[in-house]
Amino acid sequence: MTRKKTEGKRRAIIEGVSPEIDGGRYPIKRVISESVTVEADIFTDGHDSLSAMLLYRKSSEKQYHSTMLEPLINDRWRGSFEIEEVGKYHYTIWAWVDHFKTWTRDLAKRIDADQDISVDLMIGAELVEAAAGRAPDDSANQLREAAKALRSANAASVSQILTQDLAQTMFIYGDRSNATKYDKELTVWAEPELARTGAWYELFPRSWSPEKGKHGAFMDVLAQLSYVKEMGFDVLYLPPIHPIGRAHRKGKNNTVIAEPDDTGSPWAIGGTEGGHKAIHPELGSLDDYKLLVETARGQGIEIAMDLAYQCSPDHPYVAEHPDWFKQRPDGTIQYAENPPKKYQDIYPFDFECADWKGLWDELKSIVDYWIEQGVRVFRVDNPHTKPFPFWEWLITSIKDEHPEIIFLSEAFTRPRVLENLAKLGFTQSYNYFAWRNTRWELTEYLTDLTKSEVYEYLRPALWPNTPDILPEYLQFGGRPAFISRLVLAATLGATYGIYGPAFEHMDHEPLEAGREEYLHSEKYQIREWDLERSDSLRNIITIVNRARHENPALHTNANLTFHDTGNEQLIAYSKRLEDNSNIILVVVNLDPHYTQSGWVELSLSDWGLEHDQPFQVHDQLGQGRYIWNGSHNYVELNPHSLPAHIFKVRRRTRTEHDFDYFV
Amino acid sequence: MTRKKTEGKRRAIIEGVSPEIDGGRYPIKRVISESVTVEADIFTDGHDSLSAMLLYRKSSEKQYHSTMLEPLINDRWRGSFEIEEVGKYHYTIWAWVDHFKTWTRDLAKRIDADQDISVDLMIGAELVEAAAGRAPDDSANQLREAAKALRSANAASVSQILTQDLAQTMFIYGDRSNATKYDKELTVWAEPELARTGAWYELFPRSWSPEKGKHGAFMDVLAQLSYVKEMGFDVLYLPPIHPIGRAHRKGKNNTVIAEPDDTGSPWAIGGTEGGHKAIHPELGSLDDYKLLVETARGQGIEIAMDLAYQCSPDHPYVAEHPDWFKQRPDGTIQYAENPPKKYQDIYPFDFECADWKGLWDELKSIVDYWIEQGVRVFRVDNPHTKPFPFWEWLITSIKDEHPEIIFLSEAFTRPRVLENLAKLGFTQSYNYFAWRNTRWELTEYLTDLTKSEVYEYLRPALWPNTPDILPEYLQFGGRPAFISRLVLAATLGATYGIYGPAFEHMDHEPLEAGREEYLHSEKYQIREWDLERSDSLRNIITIVNRARHENPALHTNANLTFHDTGNEQLIAYSKRLEDNSNIILVVVNLDPHYTQSGWVELSLSDWGLEHDQPFQVHDQLGQGRYIWNGSHNYVELNPHSLPAHIFKVRRRTRTEHDFDYFV
Repeated sequence: MTRKKTEGKRRAIIEGVSPEIDGGRYPIKRVISESVTVEADIFTDGHDSLSAMLLYRKSSEKQYHSTMLEPLINDRWRGSFEIEEVGKYHYTIWAWVDHFKTWTRDLAKRIDADQDISVDLMIGAELVEAAAGRAPDDSANQLREAAKALRSANAASVSQILTQDLAQTMFIYGDRSNATKYDKELTVWAEPELARTGAWYELFPRSWSPEKGKHGAFMDVLAQLSYVKEMGFDVLYLPPIHPIGRAHRKGKNNTVIAEPDDTGSPWAIGGTEGGHKAIHPELGSLDDYKLLVETARGQGIEIAMDLAYQCSPDHPYVAEHPDWFKQRPDGTIQYAENPPKKYQDIYPFDFECADWKGLWDELKSIVDYWIEQGVRVFRVDNPHTKPFPFWEWLITSIKDEHPEIIFLSEAFTRPRVLENLAKLGFTQSYNYFAWRNTRWELTEYLTDLTKSEVYEYLRPALWPNTPDILPEYLQFGGRPAFISRLVLAATLGATYGIYGPAFEHMDHEPLEAGREEYLHSEKYQIREWDLERSDSLRNIITIVNRARHENPALHTNANLTFHDTGNEQLIAYSKRLEDNSNIILVVVNLDPHYTQSGWVELSLSDWGLEHDQPFQVHDQLGQGRYIWNGSHNYVELNPHSLPAHIFKVRRRTRTEHDFDYFV
Repeated sequence: MTRKKTEGKRRAIIEGVSPEIDGGRYPIKRVISESVTVEADIFTDGHDSLSAMLLYRKSSEKQYHSTMLEPLINDRWRGSFEIEEVGKYHYTIWAWVDHFKTWTRDLAKRIDADQDISVDLMIGAELVEAAAGRAPDDSANQLREAAKALRSANAASVSQILTQDLAQTMFIYGDRSNATKYDKELTVWAEPELARTGAWYELFPRSWSPEKGKHGAFMDVLAQLSYVKEMGFDVLYLPPIHPIGRAHRKGKNNTVIAEPDDTGSPWAIGGTEGGHKAIHPELGSLDDYKLLVETARGQGIEIAMDLAYQCSPDHPYVAEHPDWFKQRPDGTIQYAENPPKKYQDIYPFDFECADWKGLWDELKSIVDYWIEQGVRVFRVDNPHTKPFPFWEWLITSIKDEHPEIIFLSEAFTRPRVLENLAKLGFTQSYNYFAWRNTRWELTEYLTDLTKSEVYEYLRPALWPNTPDILPEYLQFGGRPAFISRLVLAATLGATYGIYGPAFEHMDHEPLEAGREEYLHSEKYQIREWDLERSDSLRNIITIVNRARHENPALHTNANLTFHDTGNEQLIAYSKRLEDNSNIILVVVNLDPHYTQSGWVELSLSDWGLEHDQPFQVHDQLGQGRYIWNGSHNYVELNPHSLPAHIFKVRRRTRTEHDFDYFV
């Protein structure tokens, strides 16, 4: 084992640093104005005192900023810094044996024990003089004064020399020549707030023509943007807007043979009209699309683009770059398969082809192109069927230039795969929420997502339905099921989304029994939606999104806390700001058929409430107000009126004590 | 982000590798004939099949050996290799998308679905031909034959070609050009079995003269070695055997002023007679010591040397290398302190001195010297008061040359410090066992030590007493307390030790109330022990050590399982070999005063027992035999007869079914 010049004297140990994903292999994620709280086990041999600091910088900065780490218990230290702008940040830790701190601590003990401290004062003076040698003139003079004073001090007078100010100056100019520098520089990806918090709405523009039977277009969506805006959504996601292939086009309800007037699946991308950089002519022009993007942004809505890296057999790439696809021995191109199923309308790219670099560059150019057209949010179709190194390169390259871009991963697949896509850079992730329905399932799953290390890199997007997923719970639960799933998604998740108008119209008929595919799925045909339907959930969605906007406690996930209710059908959880200036308590009846009741168990001290102090809970959903008292309070929910409460907790109720003369 | 030549095509991901300590910064530990079981999360994009292998080598080997990793569930894979000799081993993982495996899997599905497979057979033939190009002649011919056969096969005949043999050959010569190679090579330190399993006995040779009042010597220990041997100990540890300083020598019971005939503390090392490479003259000569080491080894006992890196003011180093010590401004040398306490008989080394490399070299030369004299086991005094980098360098350097050497860390200090010393290389660690007395404490602590990652690097040595520690439980619990602590240490820990004859003579008087220091501690004076005392625990120690030797289940810690008893004063746990050929169940009454009883809850299926099959438990301590049945069995222990059972579980009892005519 070799010994480097100074490492033998580096007596501090730094380990167990958190957050640190896979030994620093992957970044953690934050949004603007969030902080990064770093902890580490820091210790040294013997009885000497340590000092430690957290160093951090933006990627563009050469110099570190620094802040002190403070000891907690059991050799654990903690410090934090705030994220001020999007882009990359880096952080690391230094720790060192601090002889002046040790000396100060021991001197107090010696004085307490009435020991002779004359030699110790000389030792202290030497330490202070040494620091003066490292300090600029001003501080150096101050330190030399202090050293001189120490040399002539005694047990009674020394405390006037050892001020907090001197301690601070000694920290700054202390001897760090033997400091241990943590051997990794860890990374934070700082993103816009929308990366963490947002309500998404998905619609198929082709169904939005006001004229029956006509193919809808961007301008139709633009004309009815207020429908989406009024409900309070932040992101409007449109399935692929590119030309749709004709070869092996799928018919209505995913039949293998299409009728001549069938519109095909928007995910079968590419035709004679162009590929991933073109627009399906019936949707409108590029200018129409840009106008929609700009207008929506003006109203606080981002238009999300679907990024589906696959081709119809008619895609221009097939003729121009046949080497990007797998050739079969019979000279045909390999279509998508999951044997024995065949998807002959789709050609996947062959990421193992010789020209993989050319393929990667072209795929990136698609993202670059749409960013130039004004797109900032991408919903990525099936990223788990393309190689991980490709995504890491693509997202890192894009975000190095455009750190504000958001990528939502649609990887409905196995846990490690889903998680790795989040680790390597996807901003948000679809996940298993659609299949988590019981109290136990929801509690376990959301706890995993918010209380484990996963929280540092995976931001869950909770969707109760998508064009691919009509869960059984919605098929059979009726209106109460739709409302309770809406409330769960919107309040458990800082980011959530629905696929509409199927959702607000409570579309619940599956293609066939036991399947999660929609009957008459918009993926394969145009649907007609009567946006003014009287039974629409539009109003309740509006109320839920308003509650989200008004209550910052709902803008994050780390603060999620579950509460017992004594009833498996009744789930209760709260989110609050650290200073308790905003506290939201949600109670949902998971049983869409029967009234359920229970006692919600609270930890009042967490909320800064006294046990003998009544407080008000104000339902943002039904507008009811209740006076509660103590840690157990009764809730009863009839699913046929409203299956959920979104309580805003008002910390004080008025009593006679509030009148002036009581004060 | 840059793209290297092939990394874009490396589609397999390897992460979550275990065991891996601090991202591979530290080695894991094993002993000969143990295996290293490695797990990892391994997955790829899409639906392709993977293959993965575990690669391992001895440090001296350039080439890896390899073994297949097998998938468990949820993308977790596992494989293992066996440790054959002491020294370093390295291991890592490769994984790759296996197109032949994918093809084989999909072909079966196509055949099941009655699809045309003619093109698929060509694809398969191409894969096999490509492998032939990578194989040596013999295998290449076999592969070309198989490819040819595939080209003319059909759905009915293909299964005869796709043999297990072909699959194996295709695994060996498959295309690994795009294999993902885990980016770390992890390390195992393989040590002798004594590193994991052993019973230690500590004694002060100076108390072993048969002549009253005379200073004992090595030859006295040698003459009475049978006393230690007959009790069944594997290691005999002697406190420092070096010359003892005279300056500031401590008197009996740690008084500040020594009487002229006081012997001083063996840890105040160094005098006019020499330092760490010399022997205290009254103990005998170097030849005597070497004779003791050799003779003991012949009887299966290793002599452990104390390594205490500190000096008395009389140590030759003080005059020869004053720069290795801290100088005070008044010209004196800094003695050891823990303000306001002063230890003026001890000079610590200054590891921050300019000549730290010279100091390190000299300290290492002490270990080298004693290894040359035949010592293989070192008990290291207070390692936590010397820098971690020093120990890592020292132990690594020594073990690179002498991998069989054992270092026991005596770091009674904070958890992170204790653990780090184990991580950086100490073979075994003293720990908090002496202060874990209740069922809850013992269960929590031993579970932490055996079921967490700590198990991979920290081997606990359980000592119920040491010359520094007479725990309150032993002060007040009488004979039952000594027996129960003995049984706990010897059966909870594969390695344990006692400080005797204080232990077997149940020495329990503290220096003063509330202290854990022994009255008349041997650290400061010679004691006289009557080894033939009739109330000695010698016999029961012999029985306990015999049970340890005879039952391999007690030789390891990973297999520790606790069992409920329904009584907080009654602790029960078992250890067993994986194949259940040896099962030990220990039940201890932790209450030294009263009889306690309870129902021990077992998981019979773990032991390969049927619920309707009675089994015998045979007490290795009291020799009683009991027929038990089912998962709950009654145990009652009177501490005043025997406070513990060490049951050997005999899996079958004889019934009439054993007679031939029943079969």
